[in-house]
Amino acid sequence: MDIAILLYDQFTATDCVGPYDVLQLMPNTTVTFVGAEARPYRTDMGQMAIIADREISDVPKPDMVLIPGGIGTVAAMGDDAVVDWVRSASETATYVTSVCTGSLLLGAAGVLEGLTATTHWGAKDMLEPLGATYVAERFVDHGRIITAAGVSAGIDMALHLAAQIHGDDVAKMIQLAIEYDPHPPFDAGTPDKAGPELSAAVNQLFARQLTD
Amino acid sequence: MDIAILLYDQFTATDCVGPYDVLQLMPNTTVTFVGAEARPYRTDMGQMAIIADREISDVPKPDMVLIPGGIGTVAAMGDDAVVDWVRSASETATYVTSVCTGSLLLGAAGVLEGLTATTHWGAKDMLEPLGATYVAERFVDHGRIITAAGVSAGIDMALHLAAQIHGDDVAKMIQLAIEYDPHPPFDAGTPDKAGPELSAAVNQLFARQLTD
Repeated sequence: MDIAILLYDQFTATDCVGPYDVLQLMPNTTVTFVGAEARPYRTDMGQMAIIADREISDVPKPDMVLIPGGIGTVAAMGDDAVVDWVRSASETATYVTSVCTGSLLLGAAGVLEGLTATTHWGAKDMLEPLGATYVAERFVDHGRIITAAGVSAGIDMALHLAAQIHGDDVAKMIQLAIEYDPHPPFDAGTPDKAGPELSAAVNQLFARQLTD
Repeated sequence: MDIAILLYDQFTATDCVGPYDVLQLMPNTTVTFVGAEARPYRTDMGQMAIIADREISDVPKPDMVLIPGGIGTVAAMGDDAVVDWVRSASETATYVTSVCTGSLLLGAAGVLEGLTATTHWGAKDMLEPLGATYVAERFVDHGRIITAAGVSAGIDMALHLAAQIHGDDVAKMIQLAIEYDPHPPFDAGTPDKAGPELSAAVNQLFARQLTD
């Protein structure tokens, strides 16, 4: 299985890398990081860079597409070459997946028309104008099209995908290999659990990042 | 706070990137990826590359050191320039941290002498010859020196660090920002939970990767 993970400027690192470390452990799997250009792409705040080893035009028909989110998602939605690739690659791929605001890019490409989908909780109002209905789930599986919630949700989605493709035992082996026995020190991973005050504070933080 | 995350050939991506996405959201924090050389470093199986923006010699005294693990850890333990940097940077840093087999590099630099520590479960027998006593915990906090278990454990450790440095509310805001409300589809994240058969299979997989 050939998996293409899309990079664009100001993507969120864990959106790509969490699923990458799960999916690359599947048997007979090749993962390729792709971008509009074959060059390094820097993350949201610019403090790290992952290299896109190939141009999207060189990888027209991957078996799986994974679209991350990030501060740069809205700008990427305005890049015709990127949106066209997401649309055409999604037509032929066996699995079309997104993490966080990556689902907005799927929506901009028309892939989520009429479907329920998820995204980062802070971006939930942006899905409906793109034809999808937001649901607050860890990931939403429509068989061929799977969208995951914010950032860390990609790890859960990727393990689910590994189980769909290779069976439960392979997925469990991968979970053990990455020692994914999560023990968050707090229970504040959703707006409901964190409460309205912290949620409002995080939303303000995002708004500031987007306008900086 | 200036945080230096070490890269070396065949590191594990999530070991770095999970903590990166937590720590970079702390106030007044700069994260720099460093390596023996300022160049891209490729992950365990070579399918992705993160760029070390600066040489370790240019970053002698970071406030926090984070050492990831990976297939390449043993080779890195044989690189005097890397081990010397880990030793000297650890002497002056406020926090010295590792994820997965990164603790073996701390051990090789003499940082864990006489301490309890953790590492990837598959590498637990390698800690004792380096002066440390393995404990099967998500992370082991000795105040200034904190070691985390395999791969995904770095996220939990980083949230714990954010709480130590900036208080519980900031850590909870970061947890909410990365929507870290884990729902693994299976409960197989430790050898005990996965059982002896799957654990043996994963150990064989690692052994094969190390000799390929």
